[in-house]
Amino acid sequence: MALNVAEKGFPISVYNRSYDKTEAAVKRAQKEGLGDKLRGFESVKDFVMSLQKPRRVIILVKAGAPVDQTIDALSEYMEPGDIIIDGGNEWYENTEKRVTKVAEKGLLYLGMGVSGGEEGARRGPSMMPGGSPEAYKHIQSIVEKVAAQVDDGPCVTYIGGGGAGNFVKMVHNGIEYGDMQLISEAYDVLRTLGGLDNEELAAVFTEWNQSELKSFLVEITSIIVNKKDDQAPGYLVDKIVDQTGSKGTGKWTVQQAAELAVAAPTMASALDARYLSALKPERVSASKVFTKCTQPGPVAGVDKAQLIADVRAALYASKVCSYAQGMNIIKAKSVEKKWNIDLGGLARIWKGGCIIRAQFLDRIRQAYARDPELPSLLVDPAFAEELQAAEASWRRVAALAITHGVPIPSMTSSLSYFDTYRREKLPANLVQAQRDFFGSHTYQRFDKEGWFHTVWDETFGSADSITTSGYVV
Amino acid sequence: MALNVAEKGFPISVYNRSYDKTEAAVKRAQKEGLGDKLRGFESVKDFVMSLQKPRRVIILVKAGAPVDQTIDALSEYMEPGDIIIDGGNEWYENTEKRVTKVAEKGLLYLGMGVSGGEEGARRGPSMMPGGSPEAYKHIQSIVEKVAAQVDDGPCVTYIGGGGAGNFVKMVHNGIEYGDMQLISEAYDVLRTLGGLDNEELAAVFTEWNQSELKSFLVEITSIIVNKKDDQAPGYLVDKIVDQTGSKGTGKWTVQQAAELAVAAPTMASALDARYLSALKPERVSASKVFTKCTQPGPVAGVDKAQLIADVRAALYASKVCSYAQGMNIIKAKSVEKKWNIDLGGLARIWKGGCIIRAQFLDRIRQAYARDPELPSLLVDPAFAEELQAAEASWRRVAALAITHGVPIPSMTSSLSYFDTYRREKLPANLVQAQRDFFGSHTYQRFDKEGWFHTVWDETFGSADSITTSGYVV
Repeated sequence: MALNVAEKGFPISVYNRSYDKTEAAVKRAQKEGLGDKLRGFESVKDFVMSLQKPRRVIILVKAGAPVDQTIDALSEYMEPGDIIIDGGNEWYENTEKRVTKVAEKGLLYLGMGVSGGEEGARRGPSMMPGGSPEAYKHIQSIVEKVAAQVDDGPCVTYIGGGGAGNFVKMVHNGIEYGDMQLISEAYDVLRTLGGLDNEELAAVFTEWNQSELKSFLVEITSIIVNKKDDQAPGYLVDKIVDQTGSKGTGKWTVQQAAELAVAAPTMASALDARYLSALKPERVSASKVFTKCTQPGPVAGVDKAQLIADVRAALYASKVCSYAQGMNIIKAKSVEKKWNIDLGGLARIWKGGCIIRAQFLDRIRQAYARDPELPSLLVDPAFAEELQAAEASWRRVAALAITHGVPIPSMTSSLSYFDTYRREKLPANLVQAQRDFFGSHTYQRFDKEGWFHTVWDETFGSADSITTSGYVV
Repeated sequence: MALNVAEKGFPISVYNRSYDKTEAAVKRAQKEGLGDKLRGFESVKDFVMSLQKPRRVIILVKAGAPVDQTIDALSEYMEPGDIIIDGGNEWYENTEKRVTKVAEKGLLYLGMGVSGGEEGARRGPSMMPGGSPEAYKHIQSIVEKVAAQVDDGPCVTYIGGGGAGNFVKMVHNGIEYGDMQLISEAYDVLRTLGGLDNEELAAVFTEWNQSELKSFLVEITSIIVNKKDDQAPGYLVDKIVDQTGSKGTGKWTVQQAAELAVAAPTMASALDARYLSALKPERVSASKVFTKCTQPGPVAGVDKAQLIADVRAALYASKVCSYAQGMNIIKAKSVEKKWNIDLGGLARIWKGGCIIRAQFLDRIRQAYARDPELPSLLVDPAFAEELQAAEASWRRVAALAITHGVPIPSMTSSLSYFDTYRREKLPANLVQAQRDFFGSHTYQRFDKEGWFHTVWDETFGSADSITTSGYVV
């Protein structure tokens, strides 16, 4: 990122606890002809003293304690009005504490989510700064040049106060989990039930990347499935062990959704899929237990072209559900914390630089432009039309996969989410009646105002209750 | 519960901040002929002083700060060796702090989950005490008499150290969410797609309560669906608004599952169903948007008897998945905290008294008796056999509901869970390849030891990367 800043014409100082890393950055800058813009320092003091006031320092260290240690080291030399920006994947509450803590010394603080990986940092990431609005004014002209550029501007905007920047980056990552899982389910259905080989799969993803699914993740998938193994015959992706790691932000997103009472089944199922993938030895054992069950394999007489079209629609519709969930998590938190986050603006800065970058995000921007108070992306007129067009395909793919034993948890949970959200009457009346039966939780009626409690069974609670208190076998 | 204790022959003192509540308890005890066993007190001091040493005090107040206040008030008069038992739905970490805090004064502490509602407390609840094993010895003879009694003993056992008792009660409630949601999905499919009326539904649930589904929740469902409204013609359950509340333990269970890297989609989808049920006005609006979508209704030519049999199997199989998830959450936490929880013993004490009491729990007890190290209930030979027998029905119900637009999120997510767990090769190889592509996360190979990284695309990361950094529309 330092090279990126230097390249945009801003002089920059760099410091790392390991001086060899600082030297490496300096050397790389010289190699790229940016030597006059980038200076390395051996001590924190010299580094801080080299900066113009108000000093603007971005720290890129591991989240948690290392951030606190770095802040302590910096603030020894920084002066009131100076600015610290944490560019890591920090838990938003930690940022909130730090905003308050450094304010005691007159320092300003930003927690800035940065997405795009190494390439994004160098070529133009998507940046989500939150915290002091005053601090943002002092970095705005720099980050707007450093960020990825799309048709309607740079992929950076001030998100909101406190930990808003970290929070939206966290949800970005939760959405990323969902996108990756949905793509892998599409791949699995086409590969396992459609019998497509890697070459056909590459063609499908390449074609999809010219459609409403155009996105970084679909694009790299088209490259991945077609990559030959250079160590043995065959395709590399087929040699890779089906175990996936995770680093915490997806988990946090799911936990926050639960905390905020926002349903987020697409992301939750994507997280679960990673957890279950990690249990490889258990799965191998289990696969030997259920020998009488349906074994997934190519479906006889499948119409490949129809299947590909159906899976494309199922993937797109599920993706809409996932983003609706993500946006609603952010909206709920924004209301709770009074962050006043502009969801359309957020969709805009995700159009470039970040891992979930996609043409699709402009549709979300447009949806919120049409109605900033949209209760859910699902009911935006344009998305609603697309979902209705996709419906039949979506149901066919889900039914096919379920019938043939291929798990597509994120696609089916997205469909359940859609069918639940669009349903006027759910069977929750029964659940509420159960709660009233055993816990006197009361219920509401369609035909009368107020809350009611019923003694559902006259013997309930008495010594001769018909509901047995225990079960014997 | 005080009346229950008195009835079992143990003298008991009661205290409430509102003396009228204490008086009411005393009067009820007199009415029930237990007046000589139950004494009420007006002050905390007199209450504490009335007790034999070591004093054993059970507190039943709202979780959180009220518990701390009560402990403070009690410990003013209690002496080393005395025992405090919190019988509320407390967050397990709060109990852990209190175990340590009261130990400074020489007091012993138990966090004891109690399930069964008001009826259970009076007639015999299921109790899950955790914390000081020394304290448990002093209450064991009492709680073993107060608890619900089943064929193989009282529904209470020492769970483990620290907050183990609260933790397992929390998961009990998460499982309860799952059970209630699964029953409501069965009810919805039979009602909406099968066209069963309330009388037929009552007959179905009554019959199921004589089967492998025999349980308190199925039993009360058979009563609920058949209850006539006493305020207007028709059945009461049909007048109840389809909005469900929740009180936190289900949410905690889902959050803890994520924290422990344990997939728990059945419970998570049940929690989401409650959250979505609460959005009634949004759902009503959405139902008017998606007019071109499949509208759930009776399926022409449906074989009712077959559908009922299929739904029964789907409900049972999904329930097995849900309990497998719950037990694995407890196992993971027990390992982390070194609680050494006996899962079979836990299943045993849930056989009576609590809301999830069911014959089914004895099968779980048996499964852990066969193999205490069982990685998942799914692969226990008896459950595996039942799951294989249920499989075809389970898939038929899921495909039918998906095709006709009835959301059954907990049944379908349970089926996805099953199909994921029993699958040797998941499409997680693609996800791991994507992570390696954009984040250099590395991967493992089937045919070689070690971790590998690939430059998937030679232009990736360079200025002319084929992966666009931003999308325009």
